[in-house]
Amino acid sequence: MQQVVGKPATKYDAFEKVTGQAQYIQDLTQPRMLWGKILRSSLPHARILNIDTSRAEKLPGVKAVLTARDLPRHKIGFGNDNEVLKGSKVRCVGDEIAAVAAVDEGTAQEALALIRVEFESLPGVFEPLLALSDPSVLVHEEKGSNLSISYQFMTDEKGVEAALDQAAVMLEDRFVLPFVTSAAMGTHGCMAAFRNGQLTMWSPTQVPFLYLHELSLALGIPGSRIRVIQPTIGGGFGAKLDMYPYEGACAHLAMVTGQPVKILFSREEEFQASRPRQPMLIDLVTASDREGRLLARKAKVICDNGAYNSWGSTTPFVGMQTVSSLYRVPNVRYEAQIVYTNNPYSGAMRGYGNPQHTFAVESHMDMLASKLGMDPLELRLLNANRSGDVTPQKMQITSCAFSETLRQAGENLGPLPSEQGKLRGKGLAGLIHVGGGARVYRSDGCGAVVKLDDMGRVVLLTGATDMGQGSDTVLAQIVAEVLGVEIKDVRIINNDTDLTPWDVGSHASRTTFIAGNAALLAAEKVRGELIAAAANSLQVAPESLILRNKRVCVDDNPERFIDLPKLIRSLHFREGGKVLVGEAFYDPPTEMQDQHFLGNVSVAYAFGAHGVEVEVDAGTGVIKVLGVTAAHDLGKAINPLGIQGQIEGGCAMGLGYALSEEMKVLEGRVINGNFLDYRLLTAVDVPEIKGIPVESEELAGPFGAKGIGESCCIPTAAAVANAVYAATGVRIKELPITPDKVLQGLNELRHVSGGQVP
Amino acid sequence: MQQVVGKPATKYDAFEKVTGQAQYIQDLTQPRMLWGKILRSSLPHARILNIDTSRAEKLPGVKAVLTARDLPRHKIGFGNDNEVLKGSKVRCVGDEIAAVAAVDEGTAQEALALIRVEFESLPGVFEPLLALSDPSVLVHEEKGSNLSISYQFMTDEKGVEAALDQAAVMLEDRFVLPFVTSAAMGTHGCMAAFRNGQLTMWSPTQVPFLYLHELSLALGIPGSRIRVIQPTIGGGFGAKLDMYPYEGACAHLAMVTGQPVKILFSREEEFQASRPRQPMLIDLVTASDREGRLLARKAKVICDNGAYNSWGSTTPFVGMQTVSSLYRVPNVRYEAQIVYTNNPYSGAMRGYGNPQHTFAVESHMDMLASKLGMDPLELRLLNANRSGDVTPQKMQITSCAFSETLRQAGENLGPLPSEQGKLRGKGLAGLIHVGGGARVYRSDGCGAVVKLDDMGRVVLLTGATDMGQGSDTVLAQIVAEVLGVEIKDVRIINNDTDLTPWDVGSHASRTTFIAGNAALLAAEKVRGELIAAAANSLQVAPESLILRNKRVCVDDNPERFIDLPKLIRSLHFREGGKVLVGEAFYDPPTEMQDQHFLGNVSVAYAFGAHGVEVEVDAGTGVIKVLGVTAAHDLGKAINPLGIQGQIEGGCAMGLGYALSEEMKVLEGRVINGNFLDYRLLTAVDVPEIKGIPVESEELAGPFGAKGIGESCCIPTAAAVANAVYAATGVRIKELPITPDKVLQGLNELRHVSGGQVP
Repeated sequence: MQQVVGKPATKYDAFEKVTGQAQYIQDLTQPRMLWGKILRSSLPHARILNIDTSRAEKLPGVKAVLTARDLPRHKIGFGNDNEVLKGSKVRCVGDEIAAVAAVDEGTAQEALALIRVEFESLPGVFEPLLALSDPSVLVHEEKGSNLSISYQFMTDEKGVEAALDQAAVMLEDRFVLPFVTSAAMGTHGCMAAFRNGQLTMWSPTQVPFLYLHELSLALGIPGSRIRVIQPTIGGGFGAKLDMYPYEGACAHLAMVTGQPVKILFSREEEFQASRPRQPMLIDLVTASDREGRLLARKAKVICDNGAYNSWGSTTPFVGMQTVSSLYRVPNVRYEAQIVYTNNPYSGAMRGYGNPQHTFAVESHMDMLASKLGMDPLELRLLNANRSGDVTPQKMQITSCAFSETLRQAGENLGPLPSEQGKLRGKGLAGLIHVGGGARVYRSDGCGAVVKLDDMGRVVLLTGATDMGQGSDTVLAQIVAEVLGVEIKDVRIINNDTDLTPWDVGSHASRTTFIAGNAALLAAEKVRGELIAAAANSLQVAPESLILRNKRVCVDDNPERFIDLPKLIRSLHFREGGKVLVGEAFYDPPTEMQDQHFLGNVSVAYAFGAHGVEVEVDAGTGVIKVLGVTAAHDLGKAINPLGIQGQIEGGCAMGLGYALSEEMKVLEGRVINGNFLDYRLLTAVDVPEIKGIPVESEELAGPFGAKGIGESCCIPTAAAVANAVYAATGVRIKELPITPDKVLQGLNELRHVSGGQVP
Repeated sequence: MQQVVGKPATKYDAFEKVTGQAQYIQDLTQPRMLWGKILRSSLPHARILNIDTSRAEKLPGVKAVLTARDLPRHKIGFGNDNEVLKGSKVRCVGDEIAAVAAVDEGTAQEALALIRVEFESLPGVFEPLLALSDPSVLVHEEKGSNLSISYQFMTDEKGVEAALDQAAVMLEDRFVLPFVTSAAMGTHGCMAAFRNGQLTMWSPTQVPFLYLHELSLALGIPGSRIRVIQPTIGGGFGAKLDMYPYEGACAHLAMVTGQPVKILFSREEEFQASRPRQPMLIDLVTASDREGRLLARKAKVICDNGAYNSWGSTTPFVGMQTVSSLYRVPNVRYEAQIVYTNNPYSGAMRGYGNPQHTFAVESHMDMLASKLGMDPLELRLLNANRSGDVTPQKMQITSCAFSETLRQAGENLGPLPSEQGKLRGKGLAGLIHVGGGARVYRSDGCGAVVKLDDMGRVVLLTGATDMGQGSDTVLAQIVAEVLGVEIKDVRIINNDTDLTPWDVGSHASRTTFIAGNAALLAAEKVRGELIAAAANSLQVAPESLILRNKRVCVDDNPERFIDLPKLIRSLHFREGGKVLVGEAFYDPPTEMQDQHFLGNVSVAYAFGAHGVEVEVDAGTGVIKVLGVTAAHDLGKAINPLGIQGQIEGGCAMGLGYALSEEMKVLEGRVINGNFLDYRLLTAVDVPEIKGIPVESEELAGPFGAKGIGESCCIPTAAAVANAVYAATGVRIKELPITPDKVLQGLNELRHVSGGQVP
């Protein structure tokens, strides 16, 4: 019977956060710190003819003005196509041209205005299809094309075509996904200090060790001379997966001035110059037999990459998984093209391509059900993945409660009783996502060190990053459970690359699973020593002992125990004594995909389903979401309260994606880059969200857990689209599902039916 | 052939210190921080009748005023006889009566002046002999006596008396030692913050884990809720071994205000209220046979303890070792009485009782040589300890180059050619001290964790404290040597009880030996993994491999190697990979002394000798030190440059003790508590000091090393006294050896000889 795991736990860092004591990058300072600012391009595509920094340099209080000519010419970023400061050409609005360090923020801002840049404006390309078809505008001339990367996965080609030929039903549709952004409360910023040839970088990166490596490449200094410290992170969602050019500039400013330098993003910079979710065009073909069994899927995807590659340029890895492996489908063909444009360059965002693909796939599942005259739930259950399945990409499904989540979320699908021009309906959508790490890098591991002190205080040094998702709480619970202490006895140290053992970072919903397993192993090492010592002292078999309430107890006799701190002290305070420290590194038994995109990248897969009930105003097209039922197969809910938070946050994000969020980009410029015009859902817009953890007890997971972080936002938009269809008969294939689109759909239906429906 | 160990290394933290970037307690701040101040007693002994804090409380900006009635009534300190704030009685000038927290330092200071304390003044006792003989004034009434602790060690009693009876020569003298203080540049101070029921205490303590424990007792909260972080420490020398009452007050202020609170000592407080070296009266009897072989020693020691016990009340542990074990002496009787007075209470200070006792013992050795007509060096060599000796207290001498150090320091002893009223002479004194830890606490251990990252950067997490002695540099060298990297590749983390594995603290010259061994063991674990992997990869025997220059090389073929970072990455970036982390705890094979003070408390013992050459002005008595030769058996000089620094610092301290330093206490009040009146030697007063490391290669030490920190200041004063005697014929038995004492001695000699000498 678990004492801590499975019990609702207040967030580990809640107190510091709600009392304003948490230290975000905005709160940090250093003696003699300067303020840095970045001069950004206002043009989406232009040649830089000349930069005159002389007036800025003369401004009193300005300590340094840097342009590309002051920097080593290292290419940076995923894909090696970006620069810290751009010397010859800008490729998007917001491109970094110059960096200034000054004694205060105002002076730095003033200095920016004194820099004169002479441009030769170039025509831009803003539509990926046009960028592909018309090579007259090249974002990167040296590449000879605007195609950055292409991905192709295929089961036997003849099999796909044969399946399509045999299909009783075949659907073919284009789905259109817009720019959205994570709009984290914690805007970007960093602080750099060079001391004695060593760089300390404070950055809210969610992947500190990869970041350190990228930084060392960008600066041309060995990684052994860099230390990365993470302040409290005010949300990451993937946007803090890349090292940004301004961070390299900040480090250079610190290097040349010999003083610490801090750069903070304004909210406007956050919209224009942080990484949004990539827009996609998804042409999807779905085919089934007469009974509804899926026979084949074909997808052709165009991603608007924007001006440079980022980690987000690899989202098709995840999207193709949804096309190939969400529901059993034997024949699959997937193609994606990552296309350069002069738009803001997109990156990683919660779900990493999966929300886009799931929108397409799960809209199609409903459309297929409709065409077959089947209940959408029945169709899904018929095709649902099960334990033991191996998907076309060779993903091995272990624990799987997908059907159960579909059933829990999928009651009362279809139209609901309406009244007075209010049309109601409920829609369903499912999801698959990695739930046991994701080997997209050569190591998917995490290290942990557990240290016990004489007071029974436990410290976990872990590589894992908590960017707000609550993983620290989960790790504290795991360690507390293993060692029989309370959460408050556990302290997590995880924000300093010097202190913590390596971790690939917080992405792919991997932290609970991977870092949880590492913490579990390290804690179990220490536990083993405690049990052995107690068994010796109590003269009982080790198997009969349990750790609980800071005691080692004999299982069948609760009156026989040793006080844990006392036991620890007895091991420590004697000749030849020892302090208990356990270390472990957990790297999951998975494989990187081969060149054909085959391979079991995750130990376990997460499933889930969202059921959304909407009410549509037939006169205005306005959609009100009445409720969401979000059932998630997460293996085991280590912190049910945290799960509820993750689900609510994910659904709110998914509903925003479905209904209102769109970062509008006009000729490369974000034109609604503020919280008035960029329509995030607010508290009053978010309905009751019923989170249902479904526990499938994943054997490889810590206490049976799988990842859940990203899953919570993946199927929501598809479920909304299906609900709107159920309510109105209008099928919207382009997000967001705004009232005008619904109204237009209703009007078309009225036209067809002579104004009688619905 | 060692690459790093044994080579002079710049201090690990030199850059930060010389560029002003090191963060001392004075530099630290916290958001919303308040300033605390302590109202101290101006009377040495008084009953507190009433404390009126009402006016102070009303002062705008004052956030809290605490007196004893606001605090739990826990006794604190070593000996449990002290209180954080004194409620009923003050026992020394500087006793803490009230604590104030206010928005700034000035307001806090102003508030102190508004507190009215009504005292009933009591007669005080300031002379320990009087305090013992006359019980009419009791510092602690409830104890019924002013005797705090007494220590007694004896070999067979009849044997002692028989030896004295048989002795050819017997000397009996009283040696008198004054108050001196370490006068560290870094004055005391601390900062406390309570958050979410957890106390974080920033304190320059030199024993963070013991401090944490003492703090938990003082505050009545579990140690598991306390975290101690050490800022850069500007010198400790033992004075930062105790938790001070003001630190408890600071924590309470933080608790009641809910804001961080910082308290800093002024230099005046530093003199009056930090722990000085204890004054002692040492009545010493030394007996030898006609050839100069020591037969017996008897010592009776009175220590002026001041008003309360501190760790320093246990200095007789060390002093009796010098009496029983410096030179071979078969019959020993040692008694010490620790006596309460209303003086400032004394504590630990570099050497921990040893400089006092060595002054007595080594003065006597010279006097004995004189009486026997022997060369002082020959007498010492005759009696010197040797490897394999077991001393009367059962200390086991392992490595021992005592004779060699005596020879190196003892050339040209006796009077030297004089000119124009300048009398010259050279004196010698030896020492014994623990050099392999000191088991005075139940654990004498230290924990270490070594972590390697992909860049070949090495982090050592160690419990060990560097308070300025340079131990971080030594630990970095040890780790660098084992792993074949450079010092700059090693980062030491050792200032946070949450992060670091336990250590008893920086005292007893134990850090190089104990923490060095722990670091060595942890590094060797990692090294073992590297060697195994490299042997496998190169297909050679593990024994043929060495780590050097960030490579694993095949010993006899320098062209066959693997790059170390590459090897590390090959172990990490693969399925089932691993990050290299090694942990170790080293607790030396020693024993605590039993009730008879028998036991081998240290693995190894350090020896050494100082030769001092002086010139005395026959007209004024002014002493000029011409040079010091300091030869130390330190096992192995891991950092010869650091050793030179330790020796120079120790000799300067020893010369100050010999010649000029005396904290003058009048009726309990320090009357020369400033740097004008308290005469530290300055750069112009310090002669050339020739440090000679003598390497005896201690088998149990890391790379053969033993401790040296304290040794460097232990024999200096005795050597000066012996040199003054050699130059003048005047024997001074009371420190400091001021011109007036020398002149008085010279005048007495002139009187005896009819004005002819010298």
